[in-house]
Amino acid sequence: SRYEYVKNFEQENHLLPDCHIVVRVDGRGFHKFSKFYNFEKPNDLRAIELMNKCAELIVSQFDDVIMAYGDSDEYSFLLRRKCSLFERRESKLVSTFASTFTSYYVALWGRYFNGNESRDETRETTEERKEEDMKEEERKEEERKEEERKAVKSEPRDDSRDSRSNELVIHMLPTFDARCVVYPNAQSIRDYFSWRQVDCHINNLYNTTFWTLVQQGNMTTQEAEQRLSKTVSKDKHELLFTEFGLNYNNEPDVFKKGTTIVKEFDTTGLSQRQVERKMKKMGRVRVMHCDIIRDGWWDERKWILE
Amino acid sequence: SRYEYVKNFEQENHLLPDCHIVVRVDGRGFHKFSKFYNFEKPNDLRAIELMNKCAELIVSQFDDVIMAYGDSDEYSFLLRRKCSLFERRESKLVSTFASTFTSYYVALWGRYFNGNESRDETRETTEERKEEDMKEEERKEEERKEEERKAVKSEPRDDSRDSRSNELVIHMLPTFDARCVVYPNAQSIRDYFSWRQVDCHINNLYNTTFWTLVQQGNMTTQEAEQRLSKTVSKDKHELLFTEFGLNYNNEPDVFKKGTTIVKEFDTTGLSQRQVERKMKKMGRVRVMHCDIIRDGWWDERKWILE
Amino acid sequence: SRYEYVKNFEQENHLLPDCHIVVRVDGRGFHKFSKFYNFEKPNDLRAIELMNKCAELIVSQFDDVIMAYGDSDEYSFLLRRKCSLFERRESKLVSTFASTFTSYYVALWGRYFNGNESRDETRETTEERKEEDMKEEERKEEERKEEERKAVKSEPRDDSRDSRSNELVIHMLPTFDARCVVYPNAQSIRDYFSWRQVDCHINNLYNTTFWTLVQQGNMTTQEAEQRLSKTVSKDKHELLFTEFGLNYNNEPDVFKKGTTIVKEFDTTGLSQRQVERKMKKMGRVRVMHCDIIRDGWWDERKWILE
Amino acid sequence: SRYEYVKNFEQENHLLPDCHIVVRVDGRGFHKFSKFYNFEKPNDLRAIELMNKCAELIVSQFDDVIMAYGDSDEYSFLLRRKCSLFERRESKLVSTFASTFTSYYVALWGRYFNGNESRDETRETTEERKEEDMKEEERKEEERKEEERKAVKSEPRDDSRDSRSNELVIHMLPTFDARCVVYPNAQSIRDYFSWRQVDCHINNLYNTTFWTLVQQGNMTTQEAEQRLSKTVSKDKHELLFTEFGLNYNNEPDVFKKGTTIVKEFDTTGLSQRQVERKMKKMGRVRVMHCDIIRDGWWDERKWILE
Ligand SMILES: Nc1nc2c(ncn2[C@H]2C[C@H](O)[C@@H](COP(=O)(O)OP(=O)(O)OP(=O)(O)O)O2)c(=O)[nH]1
Ligand SMILES: Nc1nc2c(ncn2[C@H]2C[C@H](O)[C@@H](COP(=O)(O)OP(=O)(O)OP(=O)(O)O)O2)c(=O)[nH]1
Ligand SMILES: Nc1nc2c(ncn2[C@H]2C[C@H](O)[C@@H](COP(=O)(O)OP(=O)(O)OP(=O)(O)O)O2)c(=O)[nH]1
Ligand SMILES: Nc1nc2c(ncn2[C@H]2C[C@H](O)[C@@H](COP(=O)(O)OP(=O)(O)OP(=O)(O)O)O2)c(=O)[nH]1
Ligand SMILES: O=P(O)(O)OP(=O)(O)OP(=O)(O)O
Ligand SMILES: O=P(O)(O)OP(=O)(O)OP(=O)(O)O
Ligand SMILES: O=P(O)(O)OP(=O)(O)OP(=O)(O)O
Ligand SMILES: O=P(O)(O)OP(=O)(O)OP(=O)(O)O
Ligand SMILES: [Mg+2]
Ligand SMILES: [Mg+2]
Ligand SMILES: [Mg+2]
Ligand SMILES: [Mg+2]
Ligand SMILES: [Mg+2]
Ligand SMILES: [Mg+2]
Ligand SMILES: [Mg+2]
Ligand SMILES: [Mg+2]
Ligand SMILES: [Mg+2]
Ligand SMILES: [Mg+2]
Ligand SMILES: [Mg+2]
Ligand SMILES: [Mg+2]
Repeated sequence: SRYEYVKNFEQENHLLPDCHIVVRVDGRGFHKFSKFYNFEKPNDLRAIELMNKCAELIVSQFDDVIMAYGDSDEYSFLLRRKCSLFERRESKLVSTFASTFTSYYVALWGRYFNGNESRDETRETTEERKEEDMKEEERKEEERKEEERKAVKSEPRDDSRDSRSNELVIHMLPTFDARCVVYPNAQSIRDYFSWRQVDCHINNLYNTTFWTLVQQGNMTTQEAEQRLSKTVSKDKHELLFTEFGLNYNNEPDVFKKGTTIVKEFDTTGLSQRQVERKMKKMGRVRVMHCDIIRDGWWDERKWILE
Repeated sequence: SRYEYVKNFEQENHLLPDCHIVVRVDGRGFHKFSKFYNFEKPNDLRAIELMNKCAELIVSQFDDVIMAYGDSDEYSFLLRRKCSLFERRESKLVSTFASTFTSYYVALWGRYFNGNESRDETRETTEERKEEDMKEEERKEEERKEEERKAVKSEPRDDSRDSRSNELVIHMLPTFDARCVVYPNAQSIRDYFSWRQVDCHINNLYNTTFWTLVQQGNMTTQEAEQRLSKTVSKDKHELLFTEFGLNYNNEPDVFKKGTTIVKEFDTTGLSQRQVERKMKKMGRVRVMHCDIIRDGWWDERKWILE
Repeated sequence: SRYEYVKNFEQENHLLPDCHIVVRVDGRGFHKFSKFYNFEKPNDLRAIELMNKCAELIVSQFDDVIMAYGDSDEYSFLLRRKCSLFERRESKLVSTFASTFTSYYVALWGRYFNGNESRDETRETTEERKEEDMKEEERKEEERKEEERKAVKSEPRDDSRDSRSNELVIHMLPTFDARCVVYPNAQSIRDYFSWRQVDCHINNLYNTTFWTLVQQGNMTTQEAEQRLSKTVSKDKHELLFTEFGLNYNNEPDVFKKGTTIVKEFDTTGLSQRQVERKMKKMGRVRVMHCDIIRDGWWDERKWILE
Repeated sequence: SRYEYVKNFEQENHLLPDCHIVVRVDGRGFHKFSKFYNFEKPNDLRAIELMNKCAELIVSQFDDVIMAYGDSDEYSFLLRRKCSLFERRESKLVSTFASTFTSYYVALWGRYFNGNESRDETRETTEERKEEDMKEEERKEEERKEEERKAVKSEPRDDSRDSRSNELVIHMLPTFDARCVVYPNAQSIRDYFSWRQVDCHINNLYNTTFWTLVQQGNMTTQEAEQRLSKTVSKDKHELLFTEFGLNYNNEPDVFKKGTTIVKEFDTTGLSQRQVERKMKKMGRVRVMHCDIIRDGWWDERKWILE
């Protein structure tokens, strides 16, 4: 039609070739959202596992996603350097990741936040079952510890909502923003993930100390904030240990280290060409909670950065 | 931390000031999605009403969205020329609209695609009730017509899924891409919406004729495609009328014209300054199915383009 | 060759269609440059006329340039809204304007800064001769005034170079940066040129007062700066008049208003289509020194903004 | 002023950090320009040396330019990966390189194209003198060969202009466009320069053969074009040798390989920190005509790509 010329106003941004692309999604206003749905403080394992499940499904779904890392209300997805998904069009990437993450989050919410539904249904594909089983063990262990922790403190949850039903309501739905960031080399990607994991660590140490002061130390939130101002990491470790007998190092790794999801390939004994062909197919998706700042982790997974 | 420098690799695109912004969301792979969930052909009113509901909630939620238009699996949102939402950052806009639309779509799916739940709960706010009631009337009328239409044709639906339950399954969730387009003046915006509505008209005329040939004319899809190749609009009108006694002009406007959602303001008797102040607050959200190509519609709503 | 893939790393920025484009060039480090070549203070008519000549040649050379405005070491070129020069590619526009302006400036330098060569040769085309003649008159009048001004003050010029020869030296050549700015509507273009002309006015009033204090008031530059700090326009007018008997309003317009170059078309009695056809051809290039902030100037030249 | 808001319409593009930047300038319409000023065919050493001089001055002037390569009417400048010139603003880089190159080209034209002026004045700095002297030798050698070549053919030059005076005329001034291209890694930079040098080789082999057919073989240009269509490199070598006794390999390197300019640093025996400090200062600028596709050249100059 004679109106079609308006299509020419669309301006594409094709991200620079041969660079690593990170797509980071982050919950919009999760401060309020987590309050509304009575998230456990400082960490709600249901929320974290839901985030992890959404991320895992995305990693499994997109061949070009080779790794992901997340904590709190955010997840970063690493796309292969040679990725040509959507011809590297920025808006397509940004919107698709935001939308897909959101879709999983809303659709899976009930499995994680309503007791009655079995989380086992989450095992979408047979291939991921074994991995799942291992994780299930881990999860149960974590849950047991979590229960212990909860047992000590008798604080009632924020009762803005009836805590027995946690169905999503239309005027308080979860949404996520997203952005693409382009990194030209391995070092900057390493530093990117170190940045996120250090951030996770610092926030978690702060939050753990803060809520311990409030929940076990019976401080008001203002008092706790005041108490922690100007303390450094070491001070917080000490405070937790001397005043509450809590060794921060024994906190669950999922809280301290966040979650790393990575596609793994067994390439032992393969030629360069075989490796390349294999890399184009799906790798085994693994979920872990470990230090990704150190060299060793990356040295063992050279395929991530090629 | 010493890793924070990686934040500097983020590149913002602040959309040109003083321009109209259109954010268009479009269902990803809805050809397949609509097949999987047995959408009625050519138009599934449940799907259309779900789309409309999602769009209406977005229009209500964002002050800067002044109008929206949609059909099929897409919706275009018009942001005010002076809009400063997210400082006009493209990625924020693109991801937020994609995510918010998706969130509503997944969360409301059951209300529209599962018979057992009452759609009335959709009335989120008291303000929209009256509007809703009028629309409900329209809707019922449409549904009645729809039922009639369905009655004539006895074709069984694609039974890839049990058509009685229509719950979303994790491996076939709805997702949407999104893009921002910047338009410098009123004319280009007018032409933009004309472009979309002409597209709606052309597709709907084609689809209506195509599926009439298949459903009532007992053609295979190949035969119908063949029959329609090289026909122009007039031919299709004639075909429908002479061969099937169907007057296309009597088809429901929601199919022929798509859906327009607009914020309306009663500004009679107000001074320029009062108008401006009023415009910043929420207008009344109206939903309609009418010609938005003609001048008259825009002349009556000068506030849309200022 | 197998290396050609590197061409794909080029990223084009096609400026938004249907918008006005301003290309502004500005002398790089002209503070130092003007000192080195002993520019008259505060205004060196040779420099201004050289700038104007370069701009005029550009306006004449590019059909899509409809207007230009300049003062000091800068010039702004307005491209037609429908301009498709270089497919509106930003780098092509930016580099071509910077290069072309520079080329003229260097090539014409001798005509303006060396007494021995006649400036008449500058009349490149017969068409511009009449215009030139008028300007020549104006120029001579300005020069006469200028001579008068110079006569009063006996200050020796900065003698870093022999002031009799002003040939360009390789280690101090003139260069210009350039940028494109996109404006969506007439108002923003009007405001753009008002911005530049107000800037010209403010700078010129300041510089005139400053150098009067130094040259006629025998102040040091520090003293003059000190004297003018915190004064507003009105104070400077008064200072010039009461202390030096100088009425700022009688200063030459070329200094107070800068220079406007515009393509003019006689379209009286022509039909819309004839006007459009005419507009595609070269208009008559006119040079003036007048107020371009007021509506009247633009109302008489509606073709500039269409 | 109240107009200053228009400044906000400027949109900066800050080129991705930590990437190599290439700025390529290319003569605008040099097909016509070279005809107008009677450039020798296929290669005019005056033009090439003028280009090289301009490039050398730019390399010397900008600390962040570490290397340059050029042939015909183009030059590519490589900026250090960590370069922060103009905060990596694209328009600043593009316009400054276009303008600076143009300024040198116009200002130095007379030294290269008018016999009467001594080219020795070009030795702007004492540091470059030695280098110059070596190059002078090379140049004289080249010129001698060139004279020989010219001697054989008696063809008169295109006499559109009096070939004795070659002063620039205002309506045919040289101008250059420019663009920035961002490359994320060493390989792509290597391939970039290989791309340009292969291009130089292919063009020069073609042009040499073409003009030999015309000048010595007395073909018309159409006949020569026809004769060369569908020939590959080997065919052209053979044609030159068997029909004209010309061994292409003995052609001057400046024509076959183009010109490479590189900043060199003597870093033997220095610590890493000393190297870094040294690299920030000016290196010795060297000009050469050699193969830059092979690894060896780069291995000896690791500082270029860090
Ligand atoms: N209680 C609780 N809160 C959580 C948990 N995970 C995330 N949150 C909350 C804590 C933070 O307030 C918020 C994440 O911080 P952000 O910086 O992303 O801020 P927020 O999402 O509120 O705003 P934004 O839209 O991202 O700018 O989510 C959790 O497991 N438990
Ligand atoms: N049966 C049926 N199909 C519909 C209805 N609304 C939309 N669709 C289908 C028809 C089209 O195949 C599809 C929309 O076309 P698109 O051009 O957006 O293609 P699609 O979403 O498949 O791919 P995309 O990811 O957007 O490139 O959605 C409906 O009401 N009934
Ligand atoms: N004496 C004298 N100086 C002039 C004349 N026209 C321009 N200038 C000088 C005064 C200013 O220092 C300078 C223009 O100011 P800019 O803001 O463009 O600064 P400049 O070019 O030094 O630096 P830039 O590279 O543009 O950031 O040029 C003139 O006619 N006479
Ligand atoms: N005779 C002669 N011509 C030369 C010499 N160096 C360059 N040229 C001419 C040959 C080509 O026609 C032209 C360079 O080709 P380009 O692809 O850059 O085309 P041109 O500059 O005409 O157009 P453009 O504005 O760059 O698109 O310059 C030379 O040394 N001698
Ligand atoms: O959202 P924040 O505050 O964690 O920081 P950011 O995500 O870098 O900020 P923005 O979302 O505004 O880009
Ligand atoms: O998706 P299409 O085919 O309707 O057309 P488009 O949306 O303009 O194409 P794209 O989604 O690739 O921008
Ligand atoms: O150059 P200035 O200081 O007059 O101001 P600007 O031109 O807006 O700044 P920049 O040249 O750095 O864009
Ligand atoms: O100018 P060409 O034809 O050598 O090729 P290009 O420089 O890549 O084309 P353009 O100047 O249009 O970007
Ligand atoms: Mg954020
Ligand atoms: Mg958040
Ligand atoms: Mg967050
Ligand atoms: Mg699409
Ligand atoms: Mg679609
Ligand atoms: Mg669609
Ligand atoms: Mg500037
Ligand atoms: Mg300047
Ligand atoms: Mg200036
Ligand atoms: Mg080119
Ligand atoms: Mg060229
Ligand atoms: Mg070229």
